[in-house]
Amino acid sequence: MRVTVAVDCMGGDHGPSVTVPAALALLREDPATAVILVGLSSAIESQIRREQHAFGDRMVVRHAAEVVGMDEPPALAMRSKKDSSMRVAIDLVKSGEAQAAVSAGNTGALMAISRFVLKTLPGIDRPAIATIMPTENGRVYVLDLGANVDCSAEHLLQFGIMGAELVSCVEHKARPTVGLLNIGEEAIKGNETVKQAAELLRASGLNFYGNVEGDDIFKGTTDVVVCDGFVGNVALKTAEGLAQMIRKFLRAEFERNFLTRIAALIALPVLNAFKRRVDHRSYNGASLLGLRGIVLKSHGSADAYAFECALRRGVEEVRTGMLAHISERLTQMHRAPAPQDEQPPIVQAVS
Amino acid sequence: MRVTVAVDCMGGDHGPSVTVPAALALLREDPATAVILVGLSSAIESQIRREQHAFGDRMVVRHAAEVVGMDEPPALAMRSKKDSSMRVAIDLVKSGEAQAAVSAGNTGALMAISRFVLKTLPGIDRPAIATIMPTENGRVYVLDLGANVDCSAEHLLQFGIMGAELVSCVEHKARPTVGLLNIGEEAIKGNETVKQAAELLRASGLNFYGNVEGDDIFKGTTDVVVCDGFVGNVALKTAEGLAQMIRKFLRAEFERNFLTRIAALIALPVLNAFKRRVDHRSYNGASLLGLRGIVLKSHGSADAYAFECALRRGVEEVRTGMLAHISERLTQMHRAPAPQDEQPPIVQAVS
Repeated sequence: MRVTVAVDCMGGDHGPSVTVPAALALLREDPATAVILVGLSSAIESQIRREQHAFGDRMVVRHAAEVVGMDEPPALAMRSKKDSSMRVAIDLVKSGEAQAAVSAGNTGALMAISRFVLKTLPGIDRPAIATIMPTENGRVYVLDLGANVDCSAEHLLQFGIMGAELVSCVEHKARPTVGLLNIGEEAIKGNETVKQAAELLRASGLNFYGNVEGDDIFKGTTDVVVCDGFVGNVALKTAEGLAQMIRKFLRAEFERNFLTRIAALIALPVLNAFKRRVDHRSYNGASLLGLRGIVLKSHGSADAYAFECALRRGVEEVRTGMLAHISERLTQMHRAPAPQDEQPPIVQAVS
Repeated sequence: MRVTVAVDCMGGDHGPSVTVPAALALLREDPATAVILVGLSSAIESQIRREQHAFGDRMVVRHAAEVVGMDEPPALAMRSKKDSSMRVAIDLVKSGEAQAAVSAGNTGALMAISRFVLKTLPGIDRPAIATIMPTENGRVYVLDLGANVDCSAEHLLQFGIMGAELVSCVEHKARPTVGLLNIGEEAIKGNETVKQAAELLRASGLNFYGNVEGDDIFKGTTDVVVCDGFVGNVALKTAEGLAQMIRKFLRAEFERNFLTRIAALIALPVLNAFKRRVDHRSYNGASLLGLRGIVLKSHGSADAYAFECALRRGVEEVRTGMLAHISERLTQMHRAPAPQDEQPPIVQAVS
């Protein structure tokens, strides 16, 4: 079955010059996809001139007159820009014309509009943002990445459920392991919220590993790492900052003088292989989880390759029926909570 | 004037085989230092045999019969092990026989014992752990790193004051910039505690830069980054995990086959120069700030070079009169709070 993606062509640092070529690449490489290119039609069409008719009805341009600014307050963008490319793309998911929306625009606005238009799934208080990161032995899904700065234990449980279903769908793992981000492995560590969340996760029927620490993210200790949005955002950005610094230092050393430049030439294939392994572009595309629809956020600075990765991620979530799986799991937990000792937290969490 | 450091020789993964050679190296390289080597005297003496009399009264061995285990609950270590090497080292600071104590042992126990024996400075509710990290253009001091998992805005203010005085002493910067770790630069971002802390810091008379994000740590945006211990610990460990992964990937690519091994040989001087630049060993030694005495925590896995760096850091804090500077700043703020608009938070914070 064909999967149609609504593409917010105006979002991100580069707009249509990145988003449109990425969409065209997706169409070329995956014949079972279609795209609705949303935004200023003149700007979009100038990017597709040569391939105007190459994909027949698999490519449609939908004009939207407004653009949400990268620094615009989310509430304002939601209320006042009903004809923004972001809003129209999400409306297309709501109406069923598209099965997923992808945007590189303002994260806060994307979350606010998605939540307002699509609503949350039953049993989910707050949607979360989940991203993929490389690990020593594969990849890990981390959530929340900044949508929720103050999380209760129940929210963290919900993130665990959604993260596990996401991984089980897109990575085809039957019972993905879930870790709770903390500052020590022992159960006595951490603040009250985290301690309670550990209790809930332990009683949830999920494959709960227990507490993990910051370094476990990249060690690949678990398939999913759950944390509140403040901590997750700091962890992600700290990692980005360190990666950037290492890149700069490595380059500076190889460019120091004539001899080091020769060494760089000789080491180039090795350095390129290394770069491919940690290429953040291939991990682009964070999932907004917990909504009644599939929405993905691309990094604002994404290039066409990175943005295409986010589009592919959206297609994959549709094909694997991720939404239905999350809903089903929530319903199951609501009906028949897993065996537990004292407290009945699951019912609390999803009711 | 001679600076005497009490060395907990038994702490850390390697004990006297690392701590004693590190102390001897300090004595050799810095004639204005002395050490009191605390721990099982037989274990210590077997490491110093050849240099037994080389340093005269600059080296003393103080026998302590007990050792605090790396996983021992801090409260237990504090109450039941009055003759542990850690406790005796801190007692030596209390009695004035040493001006600083350095340990690679159990962090929680070190903090609990230090707090119990030395007490906090007037105006400080909770001591914090401050560490140094490399940045694109120098170094940054980050606190708290895990001593406090639930911090109020006033605690964050106190961390800012202590961090700024630390940097002003050991880095000789007149007015170091202080950043508040948050998930966005705008003042509206973050949770309530962080927003309030920003108000307090803005009114404190410190050189407050404003909010910073995770990537600003390694960009070197500010000299000091303030955060609660949960977030700081996750950020630090995430960075450690990423650095480890990158190291492994880089090594794996260079060891892939015969050709890549040759490339590695040729690139070796460059790779070594790069390694020196990000060598975490030279950043070893986290300061326990806010106590009436100077205590430093070395990484448990430190080698002799890294442990010596922590010893040097302690010596530096003594020589620059860091403790007096922090106390003075707190007294000043207590007497004459900086001009401010609505709330008088400083008095609240230090009273």
